Parts: sequence; C-alpha cells; structure tokens
Amino acid sequence: MASDDSTKTTTEEDFTHDNYGILPLIHSKEKCDHELFPVCDINETLTKQTIWVRGRLHTSRGNKSKQCFIVIRHQSATIQAFICVNENVSKAMFKFAASIPKESIIDIEGEVSLAPVPIQSCTQKNVELQVTKIFVVSPAEPRLPLSIEVAMRPDELNAYLPHAKLGTRLDNRVIDLRTPANQAIYRVEAGVCKLFRDILDAKGFVEIHTPKIISAASGGGDILYPVTYFKSTAYLARSPQFYKQMAIAADFEKVYTIGSVFRPEELRKLTEFVSLDLEMVFNYHYHEVVDTIADLFTQIFKDLAKRFATEIAIINKQFPCEPFQYVEPALRLEYKDGLALLAEAGVKIGADDYLRTENERILGRIVKAKYHTDFYILDKCPLAGRPFYTMPDPNNPKYSNSYNMFMRCEEVLSGAQHIHDSQLLLERVNHHKINVDQIKYYIDAFRYGCPPHAGGSIGLERVLMLYLGLDNVRKTSMFPRDQNRVTP
Amino acid sequence: MASDDSTKTTTEEDFTHDNYGILPLIHSKEKCDHELFPVCDINETLTKQTIWVRGRLHTSRGNKSKQCFIVIRHQSATIQAFICVNENVSKAMFKFAASIPKESIIDIEGEVSLAPVPIQSCTQKNVELQVTKIFVVSPAEPRLPLSIEVAMRPDELNAYLPHAKLGTRLDNRVIDLRTPANQAIYRVEAGVCKLFRDILDAKGFVEIHTPKIISAASGGGDILYPVTYFKSTAYLARSPQFYKQMAIAADFEKVYTIGSVFRPEELRKLTEFVSLDLEMVFNYHYHEVVDTIADLFTQIFKDLAKRFATEIAIINKQFPCEPFQYVEPALRLEYKDGLALLAEAGVKIGADDYLRTENERILGRIVKAKYHTDFYILDKCPLAGRPFYTMPDPNNPKYSNSYNMFMRCEEVLSGAQHIHDSQLLLERVNHHKINVDQIKYYIDAFRYGCPPHAGGSIGLERVLMLYLGLDNVRKTSMFPRDQNRVTP
Repeated sequence: MASDDSTKTTTEEDFTHDNYGILPLIHSKEKCDHELFPVCDINETLTKQTIWVRGRLHTSRGNKSKQCFIVIRHQSATIQAFICVNENVSKAMFKFAASIPKESIIDIEGEVSLAPVPIQSCTQKNVELQVTKIFVVSPAEPRLPLSIEVAMRPDELNAYLPHAKLGTRLDNRVIDLRTPANQAIYRVEAGVCKLFRDILDAKGFVEIHTPKIISAASGGGDILYPVTYFKSTAYLARSPQFYKQMAIAADFEKVYTIGSVFRPEELRKLTEFVSLDLEMVFNYHYHEVVDTIADLFTQIFKDLAKRFATEIAIINKQFPCEPFQYVEPALRLEYKDGLALLAEAGVKIGADDYLRTENERILGRIVKAKYHTDFYILDKCPLAGRPFYTMPDPNNPKYSNSYNMFMRCEEVLSGAQHIHDSQLLLERVNHHKINVDQIKYYIDAFRYGCPPHAGGSIGLERVLMLYLGLDNVRKTSMFPRDQNRVTP
Repeated sequence: MASDDSTKTTTEEDFTHDNYGILPLIHSKEKCDHELFPVCDINETLTKQTIWVRGRLHTSRGNKSKQCFIVIRHQSATIQAFICVNENVSKAMFKFAASIPKESIIDIEGEVSLAPVPIQSCTQKNVELQVTKIFVVSPAEPRLPLSIEVAMRPDELNAYLPHAKLGTRLDNRVIDLRTPANQAIYRVEAGVCKLFRDILDAKGFVEIHTPKIISAASGGGDILYPVTYFKSTAYLARSPQFYKQMAIAADFEKVYTIGSVFRPEELRKLTEFVSLDLEMVFNYHYHEVVDTIADLFTQIFKDLAKRFATEIAIINKQFPCEPFQYVEPALRLEYKDGLALLAEAGVKIGADDYLRTENERILGRIVKAKYHTDFYILDKCPLAGRPFYTMPDPNNPKYSNSYNMFMRCEEVLSGAQHIHDSQLLLERVNHHKINVDQIKYYIDAFRYGCPPHAGGSIGLERVLMLYLGLDNVRKTSMFPRDQNRVTP
C-alpha cells in the first residue's frame, strides 16, 4: 500500500517509512486483496494473528512515555489499539499516529492480543490491537462541530456534563448519526417498514406507489404545498388517501404504500414525514379491517422486541425508557367508553366533541393503569372533525365508522371505513362545502362499482419515537423538515 | 340478507322476493358470517355445493328463452353463472339479474355444477354456478366510459377491432387497471421492489428515507420543481443522491431507498417516478459495487421469472414479447469498447462524447446479437455529461468511474463512484460553476472523514416496462404524471 510522501513530518531516514502516512485518495486505480476485518468480529480466537481493520479514529490518548491508545470505531463496534515507539515504530510514525484527527477513517494493521484487563470503554473488551501499520484513508478536519462523545452521552448525564442541543445535532446530522444510538434507531426504523410489508404481503396485500404531485386537495379544505408545475400550479399530497382508494375501486383489494407525505402546518414538528398507508376491502363490517390492523401492530411489537433486542438495548443506554407494553388481542374501546373513563377521572367532554391532545394523554394513562397496555384502539369517533370521505355511523349520525390507534398515549394511526358509494360521497362533499370539480376524478372512481373498504395511515416516525420512548419526533427522522429547517 | 324493497321492478306477488335486489349500502351496521368464496378457488371438488361469491358482473348475455349467462370476475379470475326462469327464479328476478349493469359488484348464491363443455372464455373452465340468489352490492352506472373487454383485448387484435387509446385508458384509470394484464403488471411491480429490498437486506443494506423537499439543486444546474415553503421557496428533489451519500458519511455503509423523484422536463414521459436507489461503501475499487448491482439485477430477473410466471403469462397474452435474456455473470463493457462495436457497425462517435438514445439502441442490438443478453453494463463513461460528484477516472481525465446499465437497449440504471473527499468535490463544484453556498451542507458532509463509495439509481417503471417488453412507460405507472397530466 503506497502512502503519500508529502505528508511525512520528517525528512530524516525513517525505518518505518512505508508503514504509515496519509494514503492517496482511493480512486479505484487498482484492485487490492487486503481483507479488512470487521471490528465487531474481532475476538480472542484471533489472538496472535495480524489483521487489517478499517474504521474511524474514535478517540486517541497519548502519554509522555511514547505510548498511545487509540479506539477504532466501526458503526457501533469499538476496539482499542496500542502504539508505542519500539523496534517497529519510529518516533515519526508514533507522532503521526498520535496526531490523527478524531473521526478520520484509518486503516490499521495490527496483531490481536489479549487485553491485560477488560477494556470497559470498548465493545470488544477482551482483545486489543498492537499497531504495526497505520494509514489515513480519509482525514477529518481537526475541529469537529459536534463531538461524538458528547453526542452519544446518556440523557441522564446531560444534567452534569456538556451536551449537544437538538439543533446542533441536526445541523451536523452526518456526525450525529454516527452515534451507536442513531445507528440503531434507523436500523429499527428499517425494521418497522420491513415488518409492515412482510406481514401485509403474507396477508395478500399488494404494494403500490402513488403520485405525490396532485391537482388539488386530497382532504377537502386542507392546506397543501403549492408546486410550480410547468405553466400551472399543482400541489403536494398530504396523504395517498385518494389513490389507495382508487386502487381499491380498481380491484387491487388489499394495498399498502410507504412514502413521503407533506403537511405545511407551521407548528408541525415534521412538515414532511413517512406514512405507512393501507387500504383493504371487507365483506360486511369494517371491524374486519380494524382487526387486521390491530394484528399488524401486535405482530410488529412482538417482532421488534425479538429481532432488534441488541439495537433497542443500545438505544435505551442513551435514552432509557420503560419497555413497551401491549395486550393480545389489542384493546378496542368505543369513543363513548373513552369519554366515560375520562368522566370518571373528572374530565368532561361533549359526547361528539373530539379529544384534544392533552385529553388523549390523560385517557392513555387511564387505559394503561386499567388495562396494562401502551397500545389501544379508540373506535367510533365523532363524525365532526373527520374528512368528508369517512363513513358515518349507521346507528348515530354524530359518530362515524372511524378509529384512532394510540401508542404511549399518542395517536399513531388514523383510519376509517371510507365511503364507496359516489352518491353518498357527493352528499358529504356538499355537506363539507368542498368544490366538487377539483376532486371529480376521485368521486368518479366510485361510479362504476366499488366494494366496501377501510384503511388507515400510520406515521412511521411517531411509531418509532413512541415505541422507543423518545421525546422528540425529529430524533426518528434521518433528515427532518420543519418550518425552519430544509437542510441538511 | 335484507334487500332494499324500493328497487324491485314489480309490485305483484313475487315468490323469489327475498332472493334478489339491490342491497342497502354496506354500512357496517351488522356483522354477517356468510363466507364468500374466491372465484379463483372454485373447481370440480365443489360440485353440488351451494356457495356465495362476490365479484363484478363482467358480462351478461340473455336470450329470448329466458336464460341468461353471467360472467363474474374477481381480480383476474372469471366464472360463468347461469340463471333461467324456473321454480326458484321468478320472471321479475330474471329480469332484474339480466339488467344489472356491467362492472357492478354483485353477490351470488349458487350451486356449483360441472360445465357441459369447457368454458373457454373463463379462467374457471370446468364449473359454473346455477344462480339461486343475486344481489347488487355496489351498482355501476350503465354507461361505462371504457369497456373492460376492449381494454383487455390483445395488442395484435387492435388493428381489426375497436381499441382504447392510452389517453382514454389513463383518463379512466380505475376501470383500465381492472384488466387482467394491469392486475398482473402491478403485482410484478410490487415484486421488483420486494426483490430489490430482500436481496439488499440479505447483503446487510439498511433502508433509509430521504426528504423530498430540499433547499437547492441536488445535481448542480438541474431543473427542479419550486415549492412554496412557508414564506420561502424550496424544491422537490430530483434524486436522493445527496442524502444517500450523507448516510454513507454517517457510517450506514450500505443503504437503499425507494421513493418518488421529480423531473420537470417538458418532454419527459414521466415527470414523477419511483427511483430504487442504493449507495455502498467499498474497500479499494468501485467494481466491488458494480458487481453487487449486477448480481442484484441478475437475481431479480431470475426470481421474477420464477415467482411471477403466472402474472407474466397473463401480461404476455395481452402484450406479447420475447422472454428477457441475460447472462451470468452480467456482461460489462467499457465505454470505449462499446464505441468500437458501434464503429464496426459504421456508427462513429467521438471518444469522449456521450451516447445518444438512438446510438444506445443500436449498441444494445449489437450486444444482443453478439453476447445474447438483454442486460449489460457500460463502464467508464465520459466525465462530460456526468454530475459534478462523479469520480474522474484516475487513468484518463476525460473518463470517469461511472457506469450505466441497460435492459433491451435502454438505460435503466445510472451510477458511479461518488467523490468522498471534500477538497476534490470543491474543485469539481468550481469546475461546473455551481454555487457552493447552495450545497454547503452536502460538501460539509465530507469534511469529517468519509469512506470511498459508489451507487446507482434504478427507474422502477423503466425496469418493469423493459422486462415486460411494453411500449410505453406510462403503462407501468399506476397513476402517471407528465407535463399535461396531474389527474387522476
């Protein structure tokens, strides 16, 4: 491996000249068959073997006796490496190694040795590397705008020690995302999507893709982002609602879609987020769909705990929280029963008013105390406050065949039986004083036969935040967007 | 099952009064335990059994002798049902059944009987249903804007018989999507996404989600859709390029994302489409990534043919095409070798000019004839015409470490080694005269150490169109967008 001569700090004869330095840019000039050993796999079985490792220089501590301890980090795994001036390491090489800026990507050749005492600060506790060669693959600038040690400090220590504000983290997201907790959070997030799809695929759902650019409001009078579309104006969809229902009218029967939705409300924590949407035909009663969705959630909770135990433990180390509790089958309360529970606790709400966030929180706590579950379904919600396409309750015109689902006292899903009859849909459109012309294509979809159907929309970032007990939904959006943030 | 009295066409005493009619709207008023039998599962083993079936009235042919043949369609499956005036069927009931508009959703109770001769026009050829009850669940309006029989007619008959233009199909997409070919196309499309994810998951990739709203150009001087973002202007991302690279700089190492991308070019067939994007760290040479992507394609081709044989056969029935041919390992040609093949065929192109579409077509045909493959890779493309973040070829500054991949002579993937060094990136930004300030957040991502990496973007609709040999990419977008179309 050739190193760049110009980077050497000394011009005197250096017997380790070829064993260290800043590598030329990896430009795919030649192929190379050095195997790079993953840090997480280095253990006692490799003792006395010489291996190559690539990772970030996580920390570096030199002392006067010409010894230096380096911690190499690769994703969430860390290992200690030791370098000192000896028959293989010149003073110049030592000086080079000790001066590499943190977060630089380095290649180390070293012999694996047993650690004299377990190294508590590393994930690989029983072994360390005796450095024989050290090269910089990609240098970091010496001053980091965010210290990774600070970024990964457990919440509980933040009161005593310097900590990074969320704004600083998000401004320097590329560094912030390198923490073990963030490495784990986005793996669990990928897991939620995978489980959502796998569970629904097994039930015969078809994944679809819906356009984000639409001609007019998807929910009636809702606020939309205008887009300059060639010589006219179009809008960004707040939800795939119309399109998943059109897929139902087009006989796909059970569909889901995962994609970005856009909500330009000023106070929103996320003005763009990922929605897990599903829509499904039922035969006689929308509870067929509610049961499917409830099973979906239960299965996701179960599989997350099983498949992502390591990641969840890493996250809890930085952000401690109570394990997520749920019951099987999921608890389904009618809205009016929810009101009764609130009334018992002294909170009075009109029978057809909808719950505000603070009352949802109170109800969630009552439910948790009484039923021992962080997940429940509130069914038969008031018709007022629901979109025009919501099926009214056949038994009480003030209610509707709609439902919300909650995790740790906060809403994560909103859904309903959706009107499949163009006449009734028109009545509801008129009742809401919505301009029929703007959504003609949607209403027309129900003029040529459509089976009864219901569905729901799940906020991915919220599910993850609440499952993990995090305090801000921006912590579960890799590159969050709000009124004041469109970068990075 | 109660039917709505007002819909009866006769007030005289009708002994079959309760056995037919238009059902009241399915309003989830009561639960019901009628089992509905899927049409695709009805076969000889059910002979003499009475079952309930829900489906669309596909066709209906009555004759003077008071006999009527109805075809019921459920997704791609069809079965014949027979109704005639007899001791169970009154004249009024017969008249009602014979007058149900096509595409209405109906429930039929009937006895399964063996068909006297195989029914060639149905998928269930050996059995038919003797109707005992018939109800309309959701009526279609009598005049359909698009006939499903016309919409599903094989391409080869379109020259002789009336056929539906693409514009008419797309205007009435909800009906058009009900054809067996379209039912199959979108199942294969879901299959492509599933295979893409499953294959990459198995290789340790992490799925990520990237923002669609961005502050400035993702590719330098490219055209973007402006979005009114609160009191300022933002843009829609042409690609997740910057974000997947930032995920690499953030140590995720192997990432993919599936999502909408937005291209406001007037002549584009799809101004919004679905991109399958991946980005991956490599150790020494970007061919490590090229090999991963080539394997991904080969595996997708192999699994599509295996898992979707039924769907592909249905699609080919309407849109015949040659089976897709590929070789293993995939053919990789250098750009200059491609030019040599073209030169042999009399097509002269400057060594560092990039190929225009017509020449890509010619080259694809030469490659097919010579190497018997519909899929190949063109490597080491000219640097000119590539985005600023493309790594130049270390051996020849006019070329680059970039590649395109082709299916049936058309490009489906564009990719490259992407610059991981902020200094070189700045040089290239300046060379392209791009405003550094607008993309500072992106360049900054490479200032704190970044491993070498490469990736690519795959157009989902194009892959599907070319794999299936379809002639228009709008046929593989469920609700396509172009300059003149933002509905449905």
